[in-house]
Amino acid sequence: MNDVLAELITIGDEILYGQIVDTNTQWMSEKLDEIGIKTIRKTTVGDNEDQIMQAFREAESRANIVLITGGLGPTNDDITKPCLANFFNSPISLHQQAYSELKELFETRGFQLTETNKRQAELPDKCTMISNRHGSAPGMWFERNNKVFVSMPGVPHEMKAMMKENVLEKLQNFYHTPTIFHKMIQTVGIGESWLSDTIKDWEGNLPSNISLAYLPGLMQVKLRLTAMGSDIIALEEQVNQQVDNLIPLIEKHVFGYDNETLEEAIGKLLIKQEKTLSTAESCTGGHIAHTITSVPGSSAYYNGSLIPYQNDMKMDLLDVKKETLEMHGAVSEATVIEMAQNIRRKFRTDIGVASSGIAGPGGGTKEKPVGLVWIAYSDGNGTITKKLQLGHQRLINIKRTTTAVLYLIWQSLVQNN
Amino acid sequence: MNDVLAELITIGDEILYGQIVDTNTQWMSEKLDEIGIKTIRKTTVGDNEDQIMQAFREAESRANIVLITGGLGPTNDDITKPCLANFFNSPISLHQQAYSELKELFETRGFQLTETNKRQAELPDKCTMISNRHGSAPGMWFERNNKVFVSMPGVPHEMKAMMKENVLEKLQNFYHTPTIFHKMIQTVGIGESWLSDTIKDWEGNLPSNISLAYLPGLMQVKLRLTAMGSDIIALEEQVNQQVDNLIPLIEKHVFGYDNETLEEAIGKLLIKQEKTLSTAESCTGGHIAHTITSVPGSSAYYNGSLIPYQNDMKMDLLDVKKETLEMHGAVSEATVIEMAQNIRRKFRTDIGVASSGIAGPGGGTKEKPVGLVWIAYSDGNGTITKKLQLGHQRLINIKRTTTAVLYLIWQSLVQNN
Repeated sequence: MNDVLAELITIGDEILYGQIVDTNTQWMSEKLDEIGIKTIRKTTVGDNEDQIMQAFREAESRANIVLITGGLGPTNDDITKPCLANFFNSPISLHQQAYSELKELFETRGFQLTETNKRQAELPDKCTMISNRHGSAPGMWFERNNKVFVSMPGVPHEMKAMMKENVLEKLQNFYHTPTIFHKMIQTVGIGESWLSDTIKDWEGNLPSNISLAYLPGLMQVKLRLTAMGSDIIALEEQVNQQVDNLIPLIEKHVFGYDNETLEEAIGKLLIKQEKTLSTAESCTGGHIAHTITSVPGSSAYYNGSLIPYQNDMKMDLLDVKKETLEMHGAVSEATVIEMAQNIRRKFRTDIGVASSGIAGPGGGTKEKPVGLVWIAYSDGNGTITKKLQLGHQRLINIKRTTTAVLYLIWQSLVQNN
Repeated sequence: MNDVLAELITIGDEILYGQIVDTNTQWMSEKLDEIGIKTIRKTTVGDNEDQIMQAFREAESRANIVLITGGLGPTNDDITKPCLANFFNSPISLHQQAYSELKELFETRGFQLTETNKRQAELPDKCTMISNRHGSAPGMWFERNNKVFVSMPGVPHEMKAMMKENVLEKLQNFYHTPTIFHKMIQTVGIGESWLSDTIKDWEGNLPSNISLAYLPGLMQVKLRLTAMGSDIIALEEQVNQQVDNLIPLIEKHVFGYDNETLEEAIGKLLIKQEKTLSTAESCTGGHIAHTITSVPGSSAYYNGSLIPYQNDMKMDLLDVKKETLEMHGAVSEATVIEMAQNIRRKFRTDIGVASSGIAGPGGGTKEKPVGLVWIAYSDGNGTITKKLQLGHQRLINIKRTTTAVLYLIWQSLVQNN
């Protein structure tokens, strides 16, 4: 059968002019993808009738499904509803169920129902009303020539509840969507082009119903396999077969699957191996600790961090030797070795890691330019160091260093696994 | 003159299918807005030639400026460049400057330049190359019938550097955009609706050529004044006059102007007052330290942080009394008071701050629910504490707590100013 194609239209000046970030469409297309509906376009237009009507016409000409968010507020600048009524040549009148649900919502919240609010219970006669349990603007479902338009509020939690409780299932029933299986392979420490060179033979031999996408990030690349067919079990087996062939080629770089993060993968390995971790951060200034503790339950294996942002703190609180700092400086292999070993002892952990560098943009010298970073990993078996030469952007350098340190931790944990 | 209209086209399956959130277009339309260029539409399409070409044609028919991001990677699924070459009927060949910059980038990073990478230095002959100081894909500037197409990488920091260093100014010169003066007033600790109630008389008296926008964030609201006219000096004076009338109404909440962050404002005050700062973080797990050290030059006033993520670390390394932890628990006013006072002593700083709470989503009890956070501020004059009851989202709780701690620091610094 043909793909079922969807377009997402976001309506609102505040999104168009960049006053807020649109997070709705990311969530929506992800959910559509999971039920085999392919998003072919996302469009954002302002609260402007001509722009909105044009977007409706274009979307109807291309897609089977048009999901619209925003512009359903009670004020006059919200015009999605009249535009839809116009588009579907439908009069608007008070919808009894919508009205009673609206009254109920306002009673439970203890608010007075104003005339302005009451207008939110008026709907185009040609639409099917979709209840909004979390807000005052009901959703609208339109059908024409086997195509579906759905209008939902722009407030994320209202839209998400509507999609999950009503829209997604209704769409699955309306179209008989193909079966899809996704698998994401998470890699670290190998660039996109190196990766593609390494696996290009494997990629060239992929069956025609499986597609591959590269999703690059900072020192991390995700590989997403998408298989289309009819039987989910067969698709999963087919994809896993391909993954089994892929892994040996890039084993040293695959830390997880689907949405797992590197810090989550490390957490699982630490729990499994019953090991604990501590960090000593200079140039990363707490970002490694923040990344590790962003994982719920990280207190099970993470003892904490010391951030000695001054040389005397490195000496007094982390016992880095005065001679080491005088002879080699704070940004040196000798210093990060002592930092990693001493933090491990002080926090009584199996593993200690450390960072020291010139994050920039200032502070560089000829011998030690901005972006020079030393990192160290220390455990019962010894200490490993790595030298990085990064760029001039402070935050990027901090994040790259964090990933490099996590990569060191992960590498040693998988070796012992 | 007529408005100069822009459309933003984002290219990439990973955005279309919801693998990642698009933050680029929010930033881009905000920057365009600041130079008087109006965004009329945002479109996202996948790595699909038909869809991309159709988006190009539609955008060209509506807008003066078309800014394109994404699809410039070295792999085969990235096809923005051939699509642009096709759209502008231009052959592609190796661009010498692009090639030498690419080689230089790879040398400084110590990588081998692969054949795949080398392809990134091939450009359509009809475009003007835009240097990419932070990545391997150069930007492209096309002109046709007084309309401009600009193609940039999808990696946010690469795109932003390109926009700031090249594209925005080039666009201002190409179109003679109206004279606009912007001023942003940065506030903290006051909600949007309270703010608008407090300043509504002032807002009502704004001259017609000045508009006000509320840009809300986590515990922070930005007020953006936009003045349109012909003479930049006159506009600046006019806006500053209005700001002078505004400040007395909300003085306790204004920490800075334009793009100044709360952590930057704190840094300036610490330098001016020759004071030093240290932090002791439990539930924030390093995010306060990271926020403070994200400011270049923060080592001038920041001595560092201790993150005792376990109770025995709080006792052994931060001298929190055993009795305190046993009697009140780690998440208590008594504990954060000791943490703030002891970190200040250990790091020998004028100011010490501390956080302890249940970030969630797990770990809550009836007496101490998820989202309960205690924070403390300590200096030579004594110690201040604050109790927060936040929500159930771990990262949001960490960020809100960070802002609340920074707000405490800022409040005490301005009092002494």
